[in-house]
Amino acid sequence: MAISGKREWAERTLGPVKARFGERRERFESDSGLEIDTVYTPEDVGELDYAEKLGHPGEYPFTRGVQPSAYRGRIWTMRQYAGLTSPAESNRRYRYLLEQGQTGLSVAFDLPTQMGYDSDHPLAVGEVGRAGVPISSLADMEALFDGIPLDRVSTSMTINATASILLALYVAVARKRGVGPESLNGTLQNDILKEYIARGTYIYPPKPSMRLVTDVFRYCSEEAPRWNTISISGYHMREAGATAVQELAFTFANAIAYAQAAIDSGLDVDEFAGRLSFFFVAQSNLLEEVAKFRAARRTWARIMRERFGAVKPRSWMLRFHTQTAGVSLTAQQPENNVVRTTVQALAAVLGGTQSLHVNSKDEALALPTEDAAQLSLRTQQILAHESGVAETVDPLAGSYYVENLTDRLEEAALEYIAEIDRMGGAVSALERGYQMDEIHQSAYALQRRIEDGDRVVVGVNEYRAEEPPIEKLQTIDPEETRRQVDGVARVRRERDGDAARATLARLDDVARGQANTVPAIIECVEAYATVGEIADTLRGVFGEQRELGRV
Amino acid sequence: MAISGKREWAERTLGPVKARFGERRERFESDSGLEIDTVYTPEDVGELDYAEKLGHPGEYPFTRGVQPSAYRGRIWTMRQYAGLTSPAESNRRYRYLLEQGQTGLSVAFDLPTQMGYDSDHPLAVGEVGRAGVPISSLADMEALFDGIPLDRVSTSMTINATASILLALYVAVARKRGVGPESLNGTLQNDILKEYIARGTYIYPPKPSMRLVTDVFRYCSEEAPRWNTISISGYHMREAGATAVQELAFTFANAIAYAQAAIDSGLDVDEFAGRLSFFFVAQSNLLEEVAKFRAARRTWARIMRERFGAVKPRSWMLRFHTQTAGVSLTAQQPENNVVRTTVQALAAVLGGTQSLHVNSKDEALALPTEDAAQLSLRTQQILAHESGVAETVDPLAGSYYVENLTDRLEEAALEYIAEIDRMGGAVSALERGYQMDEIHQSAYALQRRIEDGDRVVVGVNEYRAEEPPIEKLQTIDPEETRRQVDGVARVRRERDGDAARATLARLDDVARGQANTVPAIIECVEAYATVGEIADTLRGVFGEQRELGRV
Repeated sequence: MAISGKREWAERTLGPVKARFGERRERFESDSGLEIDTVYTPEDVGELDYAEKLGHPGEYPFTRGVQPSAYRGRIWTMRQYAGLTSPAESNRRYRYLLEQGQTGLSVAFDLPTQMGYDSDHPLAVGEVGRAGVPISSLADMEALFDGIPLDRVSTSMTINATASILLALYVAVARKRGVGPESLNGTLQNDILKEYIARGTYIYPPKPSMRLVTDVFRYCSEEAPRWNTISISGYHMREAGATAVQELAFTFANAIAYAQAAIDSGLDVDEFAGRLSFFFVAQSNLLEEVAKFRAARRTWARIMRERFGAVKPRSWMLRFHTQTAGVSLTAQQPENNVVRTTVQALAAVLGGTQSLHVNSKDEALALPTEDAAQLSLRTQQILAHESGVAETVDPLAGSYYVENLTDRLEEAALEYIAEIDRMGGAVSALERGYQMDEIHQSAYALQRRIEDGDRVVVGVNEYRAEEPPIEKLQTIDPEETRRQVDGVARVRRERDGDAARATLARLDDVARGQANTVPAIIECVEAYATVGEIADTLRGVFGEQRELGRV
Repeated sequence: MAISGKREWAERTLGPVKARFGERRERFESDSGLEIDTVYTPEDVGELDYAEKLGHPGEYPFTRGVQPSAYRGRIWTMRQYAGLTSPAESNRRYRYLLEQGQTGLSVAFDLPTQMGYDSDHPLAVGEVGRAGVPISSLADMEALFDGIPLDRVSTSMTINATASILLALYVAVARKRGVGPESLNGTLQNDILKEYIARGTYIYPPKPSMRLVTDVFRYCSEEAPRWNTISISGYHMREAGATAVQELAFTFANAIAYAQAAIDSGLDVDEFAGRLSFFFVAQSNLLEEVAKFRAARRTWARIMRERFGAVKPRSWMLRFHTQTAGVSLTAQQPENNVVRTTVQALAAVLGGTQSLHVNSKDEALALPTEDAAQLSLRTQQILAHESGVAETVDPLAGSYYVENLTDRLEEAALEYIAEIDRMGGAVSALERGYQMDEIHQSAYALQRRIEDGDRVVVGVNEYRAEEPPIEKLQTIDPEETRRQVDGVARVRRERDGDAARATLARLDDVARGQANTVPAIIECVEAYATVGEIADTLRGVFGEQRELGRV
């Protein structure tokens, strides 16, 4: 049977059926608002030049992945983000997860730690150990990693405004155990720009914050060459309501700003580019997400090669961590969240993520219980060992739909990046609130669609049901919190106070000059100066940033 | 950058990495034992002729689906298989599922009903209401569908040896409510051949069994044109250990036997082919399963058009129901089953199933509780409304890997079918135990791989954990069973016994001759003759089949 084009088919075959039965909606679209056609055919990828657009795995432009054998060589790192109540309690959870087969650690810090306040600071009351583990001094950090071999584990730390302080603490704990920074593996989030845009845990104004970021780049390029110096994050912007296109665009615009700042500070692009890493969400729209990850790799490779002139292949390679979408979890019918996170995790794996966190079904209500955290890990293990998707590299390549979406996502993201370039780059744009406004509009549009019932959220605006009571939630033991607060005072009492003050004074000097702040901060933490004291010292030099933008 | 072929890439890029780091296994393969390569590229689908191999949706060979707009027009039918304890209890579950948004019914019958024994038969003791609902007479069937509008619902019945008796009961209930058979929508499993091969609920020898099947074809082509007369099932063979290739091959070999029998009985192929339907499993190997469903559509279209010379497009179209894999459920860590069934359900949807049952997490232990059944339905609803995969038709088409697997599965299945043809067709082959032997070998090989730890089953041979006690299982109320057993005796007592016996005598006559047995069976059930009495009458004429083969 001779086949004709899509238009002839639409007239001949689709038309009569559509006329008679209609379709579920007038217009189908992706989460990014890209229109989705009834069917995708070779016509939709007409000019697909395999070499230019895809390339084989491990080769430019890396659409198909940065490793030639991907999960056939090694399964992605299963890295469940965790941190709770106290260093000791979190240490127990980490050891539990490692025993259950987890392959990397990921530390969640509480809000006071993220904002540079010690656990006994008046502003910390009610927040100590709530969103993650509280860390105020080297003593806490030692308890957190007690019995965990820092030369063999890889550790990711979600910390930004106080990133270099926590890196210093990690280096100091390792040193006390005879492990040098050159042996450390891990990732510091250290992405302050997205904090201004979406997440809100910034302390200083953008310019000095950028200097703290590049100080970490410089320190690591000399001392800790295996450490990923930044995890440039689309996650939180997407969670705040960005579309997949905005997630790509704003993340890369921020990445461009970091790279430019590093170059401006005198680093060569190939010196630091290989230690940049990224962090994206895996949302529920399975195939748009897969296309997003593929588009991300190609876009970044081209930015590094064509815009920054990087020459090392490693500098072109996008490596990223993925977390399933916290905002997609519903408090209603929490078991439904297992279905959602499975689909999302699958998107991450089909998209070729390097590491993955799967949210737990009870996280719309509290930090996950141990059982819920185990199920998240099992989700990853089932995908790795039972679903078959880890057996071949980039298995959806060639799909007319996925390739078409990959192209369109890249194109739309590049348009945004060009717009931000015209505004003078990510920092200037966010100072005007540009990204915040764009995200706000997307969030609002989505909210409207949910309220109108145009977008179904199962168990929330449709398919509701009587709810059985929730059985078990993770709680915070107030006794444990009191011990944590008391512990900070004890550290201050028992340390050599003069020595601590001397290191803080030295940091003040360094911060006012041009030298790298990281070694000075390491000296502070080794003298048991606290996170709050170090942050206060920098506040004294850099000032504090009040509200910016509107997300 | 100039790209070269896969071989050059394997030498240049993959080779060094593989030499240095190795891969997780020597050989990667699909569940069917097809070797999986590191990567699939345009070379692997080199000759992909879109028109010949795929075609647009709704056009021959229907690889991309039998409907041009598929789920954009209407979401698949969510049809959760259910039946428990008693007709009244099952009726409550059906009403619950319909209230929760289910769109079709699917009746599970208990073993005595499937084997043609009334609930009060000595062989039924301990089995009444265990695997499904017990139905012994028209009174039970009326209770089962109490308050459910038979002219508006579509009902699937998993019944084989006694299929025509249950169809007769359904027609009789509808008639009592003024609904004629021409208005009934639904599907009868009615696939006796796979019972000999794998499932075991056969009564009579193959030849008279085939006659009962074709009698249903003939009755429906005259009286119930909207009823799907058979659901030719690969499901149970796959569950017994067949590979995906064997599932396709043995299902189509059986389908060929039914079609040939119907043609031999004087029907024209285009008279019955449009009412044949199929039933496959969705196992965990996501992309092999998607390829399987696509290969199934193309294979069947070619069989009907080229082998049987069917001329109506409807005769070429494969329509199928899918159920997730019961055998994949583990009693250990039952929540893991939610992850498994999500992946499996996604395979069915990406493969374009017409209707879907998602197993419940507790089904390795008992029939599902109401909460677990609700979660299965929610799984379907989340895939339909949140995952985006229903927004475009056959979204994985073009994927080098999926297209390559689709071709290889079809090819391997056709080889098996040719072998069965050489043995004289499916009936002759199964009389020699051929399919049973082949399945047995596959099952054994898989079992070995699990025992050797080569194949990981999460929570079973790896990632075990301490188990919290199971909270709630579905139970059978013995009081309800007693009522059911007593009810059969009451029906016999209260009916017009002579009239019932007269209809059974007429059935005996018809069965000994050539006329269609279905109208005679309808007369029996309308006179309240029981399922056991009707089956006994046919046993008297056809004899009983003792064990066949070895699965």
